Amino acid sequence: MRIAIAQQNYHIGNFEANYQKISAAVQSAKSQEADIVAFPELAVCGYPPRDFLEFRDFTNKCQQVIERLKQDSEGIAIVVGSPSVNPVIEGKDLFNSAYFIADGEVKHIANKALLPTYDIFDEYRYFEPATEFSVVEYKGKKIALTICEDIWNIGNENPLYKVCPMDILIEQKPDFMLNISASPFAYNHSEERRLVVAANVARYKIPMIYVNAVGAQTEVVFDGGSLVIDDAGNTIDEMPYFEEAIRVYELEPLFNAERDPAKDNLRAKEKMDLIHRALLLGIRDYFGKLGFKKAILGLSGGIDSALTLALAAEALGSENVYAVMMPSKFSSDHSVDDSLQLVKNLGCPSDLISIQNTFDSFLQTLQPQFEGTEFNVTEENIQARVRGVILMALSNKFGYILLNTSNKSEAAVGYGTLYGDMAGGLSVIGDVYKTDVFALCRYLNRNGELIPENIITKPPSAELRPNQKDSDSLPDYDILDEILYQYIEERQGPNELIAMGFDEKLVRRILKLVNTNEYKRYQTPPMLRVSSKAFGMGRRMPIVGKYLS
Amino acid sequence: MRIAIAQQNYHIGNFEANYQKISAAVQSAKSQEADIVAFPELAVCGYPPRDFLEFRDFTNKCQQVIERLKQDSEGIAIVVGSPSVNPVIEGKDLFNSAYFIADGEVKHIANKALLPTYDIFDEYRYFEPATEFSVVEYKGKKIALTICEDIWNIGNENPLYKVCPMDILIEQKPDFMLNISASPFAYNHSEERRLVVAANVARYKIPMIYVNAVGAQTEVVFDGGSLVIDDAGNTIDEMPYFEEAIRVYELEPLFNAERDPAKDNLRAKEKMDLIHRALLLGIRDYFGKLGFKKAILGLSGGIDSALTLALAAEALGSENVYAVMMPSKFSSDHSVDDSLQLVKNLGCPSDLISIQNTFDSFLQTLQPQFEGTEFNVTEENIQARVRGVILMALSNKFGYILLNTSNKSEAAVGYGTLYGDMAGGLSVIGDVYKTDVFALCRYLNRNGELIPENIITKPPSAELRPNQKDSDSLPDYDILDEILYQYIEERQGPNELIAMGFDEKLVRRILKLVNTNEYKRYQTPPMLRVSSKAFGMGRRMPIVGKYLS
Repeated sequence: MRIAIAQQNYHIGNFEANYQKISAAVQSAKSQEADIVAFPELAVCGYPPRDFLEFRDFTNKCQQVIERLKQDSEGIAIVVGSPSVNPVIEGKDLFNSAYFIADGEVKHIANKALLPTYDIFDEYRYFEPATEFSVVEYKGKKIALTICEDIWNIGNENPLYKVCPMDILIEQKPDFMLNISASPFAYNHSEERRLVVAANVARYKIPMIYVNAVGAQTEVVFDGGSLVIDDAGNTIDEMPYFEEAIRVYELEPLFNAERDPAKDNLRAKEKMDLIHRALLLGIRDYFGKLGFKKAILGLSGGIDSALTLALAAEALGSENVYAVMMPSKFSSDHSVDDSLQLVKNLGCPSDLISIQNTFDSFLQTLQPQFEGTEFNVTEENIQARVRGVILMALSNKFGYILLNTSNKSEAAVGYGTLYGDMAGGLSVIGDVYKTDVFALCRYLNRNGELIPENIITKPPSAELRPNQKDSDSLPDYDILDEILYQYIEERQGPNELIAMGFDEKLVRRILKLVNTNEYKRYQTPPMLRVSSKAFGMGRRMPIVGKYLS
Repeated sequence: MRIAIAQQNYHIGNFEANYQKISAAVQSAKSQEADIVAFPELAVCGYPPRDFLEFRDFTNKCQQVIERLKQDSEGIAIVVGSPSVNPVIEGKDLFNSAYFIADGEVKHIANKALLPTYDIFDEYRYFEPATEFSVVEYKGKKIALTICEDIWNIGNENPLYKVCPMDILIEQKPDFMLNISASPFAYNHSEERRLVVAANVARYKIPMIYVNAVGAQTEVVFDGGSLVIDDAGNTIDEMPYFEEAIRVYELEPLFNAERDPAKDNLRAKEKMDLIHRALLLGIRDYFGKLGFKKAILGLSGGIDSALTLALAAEALGSENVYAVMMPSKFSSDHSVDDSLQLVKNLGCPSDLISIQNTFDSFLQTLQPQFEGTEFNVTEENIQARVRGVILMALSNKFGYILLNTSNKSEAAVGYGTLYGDMAGGLSVIGDVYKTDVFALCRYLNRNGELIPENIITKPPSAELRPNQKDSDSLPDYDILDEILYQYIEERQGPNELIAMGFDEKLVRRILKLVNTNEYKRYQTPPMLRVSSKAFGMGRRMPIVGKYLS
């Protein structure tokens, strides 16, 4: 028996495009004499469809794709993810299903039992969990067909869940496991995912075909890396990361295999390599799926906008990324020089636009109101907002999407100007801590200087008042980022942080900054998610709360 | 037996303030010789605490309040909502619980079974559903103690759920029902809630004490209106809406009552009266809970900013709301005159600030780039953004919160400028359709002209180009709002809308506008929720999707 994995990138709600892509893969699999071709979770509509699932029109369109796939299923079995209607009145209206389609009909529907409802996931908002499980029989093989999270409660050891679908399915003596997923990227998640797949094989002692989605859906990036593991636990193949691919595997060698440690020498994944590729895909898909080609951003001379520009130029093509330098009298000379060098290295179109006249015009306009007040953060913010207006004007006039250049550390503590440097359609590095911004720049420079060394080494500054430095307002990024990581990713509270040895006063100051700046993050653009806990849909906080603040 | 209802307004995560408020109510109830005092759902931490629940420090602090309340419970039983730790490893870590505390100890913990996970609710993200139910016995009475949604599946007729806790509890022959809730306001929800409470009484034939929370938590408003219904279904009391209150009821008259239709003549709730009061509370609590007193807004001469100003002046005091008029050469004369009249009617401080010089300065700055292009939406947006910068500068300098003045119709179709008129800390009328904006203005003028008639009757216009009218770009609001309502609140798709008789081309155009403007709404401030489906946390849509767009 031959099984094809179609690791594909879908467009949410673009049913015609998704159907065409799936159908083409079916044809390709047929031409390679596959018996079964498997697609990711919710492939027909794209994952996550979110509240579109509340529209009957939307779920009807999913069913129409299933109908069309029936007609494509002569001579091949198609396993594809789609919402299906729950026939029982009680409970949610839908299941998150894997359709098994062959010979022109739906032979089996496997429903997902473990519905992730944490972080970015809202599955119990839409889906009823499955309570019954049975294997699919096809061409003499019994298949344990599951969906994503269903294999993440191995032996009931995941404290979130009470059911382990594979423990039930294994009693029906399946020949192999087939799991269709939409498992999102985080720099530490691909390794975790491989361990989970391997642990299932170790427990059930049958091969696993693991099909993951690829592609970015606004902020969430799916990284692919589909897996084929034989019953001895050898990794037969790991499909590419961050790319579509269709590959066909002969099943027989997966059975009665012998453990061969040499086969597990998969290349180790480097954190910066993964983040780099995730961000490129995130940018490309945001633009591609919205039908845009060109980006604009403000280049300050600092490291964040430099990194964002380098990533955007690589993702979209240098000629499509327009870099605008907008110095003021507080900008240092090297800011423009460094920016010009960067633009030259990358080959991007650029412009130099002074904000001084407009800034002065605002001060003059507000003179009657501001009379007798001191220059403070207000005037700093005006500069950032003048830049925002200029960038948005160019964006509106010529059809660019503005890229936001804030990093995760400053987004966390609110070190940024709402409607100024916090503006944009997409935040490229909003889930990358400042310390990782440095590391990522070094990584991009690994084959030669792309980002000028001076941009990387000079002390970070917003340059909104004379001789300003980030370190005037913030602790060293090494310490700041470690505290932020423990608080945001690891959900450690003040007592735990102090017990770790961090200074109490500093801990309380930082946690207060994070919590009181929730209102700013509420209005920031979507941030490409590369960690296990990004700001945005995966982290939901009250604005008017008063906790640690 | 005497039972006190404490309908209170909590501050999320402000444990000390919440404890003090609860403790004061316990003392008040004691002094009124109550045997039991009941508080709303998750009273100790405020509802909804959202992802704060993922911090052990936060849930520990909830437990510390429970410990303190034990000491307050000599001579009175305290029923209070709090998260509690799930002792079983499998499943979510927490329950959403009602603690029954008396004589210095926790006598009983009732856990919530039906966990709303739709619209604004994410309860299954945090809580494990209860599967066991038992009545509490106290002073010779058996109490069926439930939490909010638990009474919303009467006789298993709510299709969302498979369990009906009261069907199980009634077998233990309780004397009365006690439900503690945090049931949010929507203009059509208070009536629905009364019907549900009444239906429970009708089914189980025992009295119901229904305790609701009050107060606004960022965008979500809780309206109070706690209920006492005797076993014959007579409404003995409905507590005030949008206000805190403590009242004590004698239980005996609730038993063996006779049906008396006269007692059900509660005053009918008017939609505009409810919305009006909800918005006032929403504004007050947003400011109060953030520790701010003063608001600023831009007054265009149009109806939306006029209504927002009138509401803010009523909520915060006229002297605390600063109205800024920022005409341009496209502003009609009556815009300023009407605004001045409004400001005079309300008694608010105001200023007139021209945007012309700054607008011109932007055009001059961008002249090299804009050379040869026509005046279009870009220049319109620059005007809106100049106003945004001015308002934010005044906000930053003097500590005002900027109020956003967009209505739901324009937020829906993206008729607004990101970082311009879409800016602000709080959107006051972002969940009020334009047709209801008119109705609400008429309502505010019911006792005399507050909002000048000319503001209400003139054709809506953004005044960003010569002789511009909303009707140049949008269909009549009567039709637009009806289509938007069906699509947004009722989740009707294009086929259903066309079947209702709406023009197909118009339907497709409007739905496309709604869906392609998701990126704008992603960055708007929280909008006070007054309908059953507001933009924001209760409506979660993909940005890069391509569905009806």
